This record gives sequence, C-alpha cells and structure tokens, in this order.
Amino acid sequence: MTRIRFQQSLEGLKENLLVMAGMAEQAVQRAIEAYRLRDLSICDMVSRGEITINRLERDIDQAALDLLAMEQPMAIDLRFILSVIKINADLESVGDAAKAIADRVRSMGQMAAADLPVDIPRMAALAADMVRRSLQAFIEADAEIARGVLTMDDAVDSMNRAAYKALTQVMQEQSHLAPQALNALMICRSLERVADHATNIAEDVIFWVQGADVRHHKSVNRVTSKDVQPAAEKAPPSNLP
Amino acid sequence: MTRIRFQQSLEGLKENLLVMAGMAEQAVQRAIEAYRLRDLSICDMVSRGEITINRLERDIDQAALDLLAMEQPMAIDLRFILSVIKINADLESVGDAAKAIADRVRSMGQMAAADLPVDIPRMAALAADMVRRSLQAFIEADAEIARGVLTMDDAVDSMNRAAYKALTQVMQEQSHLAPQALNALMICRSLERVADHATNIAEDVIFWVQGADVRHHKSVNRVTSKDVQPAAEKAPPSNLP
Repeated sequence: MTRIRFQQSLEGLKENLLVMAGMAEQAVQRAIEAYRLRDLSICDMVSRGEITINRLERDIDQAALDLLAMEQPMAIDLRFILSVIKINADLESVGDAAKAIADRVRSMGQMAAADLPVDIPRMAALAADMVRRSLQAFIEADAEIARGVLTMDDAVDSMNRAAYKALTQVMQEQSHLAPQALNALMICRSLERVADHATNIAEDVIFWVQGADVRHHKSVNRVTSKDVQPAAEKAPPSNLP
Repeated sequence: MTRIRFQQSLEGLKENLLVMAGMAEQAVQRAIEAYRLRDLSICDMVSRGEITINRLERDIDQAALDLLAMEQPMAIDLRFILSVIKINADLESVGDAAKAIADRVRSMGQMAAADLPVDIPRMAALAADMVRRSLQAFIEADAEIARGVLTMDDAVDSMNRAAYKALTQVMQEQSHLAPQALNALMICRSLERVADHATNIAEDVIFWVQGADVRHHKSVNRVTSKDVQPAAEKAPPSNLP
C-alpha cells in the first residue's frame, strides 16, 4: 500500500466514523421526537437504526484492524486509528441510549399524558449538540472545541440534577403520576449517558491531539514506527499554549 | 525488541488489565457494602478508587499504544492488543457505575431507612460475577465462558425489570418512600450498566477468539503483519464447533 493509498484509507475510516456519528445523533433526535409526539412508529425506527449502528461499529472496527494489520502506521496514525476505535465504541453506546429512550416512550404509550416539570427536548438538544461537537473536535483535531464539550457536560449534569429533584417531588406529591415521572427521569438519565459518551470522545480527542505533534499529519514523508521514539509521543504539540 | 521480550510485554499488559478488572470489581462490591451498611466512609473509598482506576486506564492505553508503535505485531497480537484497549474502556465504565452507586448511597444517608422489595446485594453479586467471568473468558481465550456471560446478562435484565415494577408500585402506594425507592431503582440501573459492560467484554472476547486462529498464539515464530492476509483473520478458529 502506498503512503497515498494509506492516507486515503485513513480518510475512508474517518468518513465512516462520521456516518456512524450522524446515525447516533439522529437516533437521539428521533427518540426525543418519539417522546414529544408519543409516536411509536418513530420508536420502531430507532430500534431498527440501532441494529444498523451495531453493524457499522463492527465494520469500522474491522477496517481499523485491517489498516493496522496491513500497514505499520507511524505513531501519529496509530493514535488516530486507536481514537477511531474508542470513539466508535462511544457512538455505539449513544445508539444504545437512544434505544433505551425509545423503549421508555413505548411503555409511556399506555399511560395518561402528564405535564411534568422537565424540559426533555432542551436537554436532548444539548446532548446531541455535544455529540456533534465532539466529532467536530476530532475531525479538526481541535482540543479547544473538545474542551468546550467538557463544559457543556456540566450543564447537562446540572439539568439532570434539577430534573431529578423536580420529578422526585412530583412522585411524592402526586403519586398517581409516579410512573410518568419515573419514565421522564429515566429518559433524563439516558440523555446524561449520551452526554457522558460525548465527553469520553472529547477526552480522547484531547489525549490524541496533545499526545501527538499534529504538524506531522501534514507530512507526506513515510516514517516507519521504528523512527518514532515513544518519548516523542508524549511531547506537547506545538500549537497548544 | 525480541519476540520473547515482546511476548513478555503482552503478558505485562494482560496482568495490568487484570489489576484493573480486580479494582473495578472491588469498586462494585464496596459500593454495595456501603449501601448495605449505609457506611459513608466506604463511599469515600469508592470515590478515591475511581481516580486510581482512571489513571490505570490511561497507563494501560499508553502501554498498548507503545507496543503497537514499537512493534509491528502480527494479526493475532494486534487483535489481542485492541481487545485490551476495548476491555480497558469497559472496566473504566464499571468504575464509573460503582461511583454512581456510592453517590446514591451518600444521598440516602439523609433519608429514613426503608424496607424495599428489591434484593440489591444479590443483583450486585451477579453483576460482579459477570465482570469476573468475562475477564476469565478473555484470559483463557474461551468463547464458551464468554457466551455464559451473555446468558447471565438476561438474568440481570430480568431482575432489573422486576425491581422497576416493584419499586414503581412502592412509589405510588407509599409516596413518602418515593425518594428511597428511587434511589434503589437508580442503583439497580447502575448495576445493569455494570452487567452491560461485562457483556461488552464478553462480546469482544468472542470477536477476538473467533476472528483469530488461537493456535497461532502458541507459536513462538515471528510472523510479520505482511505475512498475514486480512482474509485469514476471518477464518473460524479450529477449536470451535
């Protein structure tokens, strides 16, 4: 495989990860749409989508493995491929969280509608945005964007704590609404998990960008892994303060 | 690095992963002990342990990366190293789940004790056993043990569903116990997550064992990755039906 072919394969891997990210983000948005409209047909779409996401996860893992097996990537590419594998696993978990929300919406279908003191669509929008930005940070190798995601996670955590408090109160004071309040609370928890996985991705991006001198990425010279000393991987990148 | 040195490094990686697994399992057990005894000092131990687990996760990742960077491992070793990286991430999440339980126990500290219709220690014992067995499957490259873990996951799921039903009923019929019931429910959810991560590990073991001819592992002949065709990775292993 020539260096250029190899770089094309890396690009292909990146593109597939973006497809995966798009599907995971869409799954969250659909699950919340299902919640908002109480639409069980959207729940089914989320469940079917999860199967596709799981298959894509395996495909991306296999492609990453093949690249590692057929090439001896230098440290910077290695770190990139390993980041893909980790981010891939987090995106699959985002798909799982979306499916968990869809399952909750299904069980809510049998309950009377209730006006609850929690803005789930707003929390969902924030969590989905975190997924989008963590991937943007990865694509642009931008640790600043990644750090922004960590800050957003604090906001989701605080919304989740507020929801917990308000919904527990509903359960105590209007016990006939306990099942609905509990379902809403579980959906908030799933959204918090989406945010946690976006945070994992952002942390991986920071690890990846800080651990490797990003200028190397622009080089087309072939460097074998033997040329790279392990210590060099820990050197701070030149484009960070 | 000689082949023997390399094999020793792989063994070292495996041992560190076992230390990580032991700590993650212990964190779950401690969190449940804290729940059983309402002992906040054990909660603090879990929180401190989580910091150590996070550091160990990074160390193992770095060691795996260094091995990939300095060697050109053949397909079977590659797959092993990638499994370590994935299992490592799951173990770190088990530590997170244990910490989430400890946080719940802390908030329960201010509430009156309540006799709830849920056997959390039993569910925790099962989840911790799944973590232990999934690691055993990995260490022994045994897909059968891994499949056993998947079956145990069904048991945890069904215990979790039963707990959900029973605790929702408590919330509705004894609304003054709603906060306690909700806390117990959240702990069950965290235990379900522990079981999910053990399941992920088991699935990775099956993928690893099935994807590679395990007999290769016993060979001490150096095989470079160029000698290995990607198709060979998908061949069924000889020791499986």
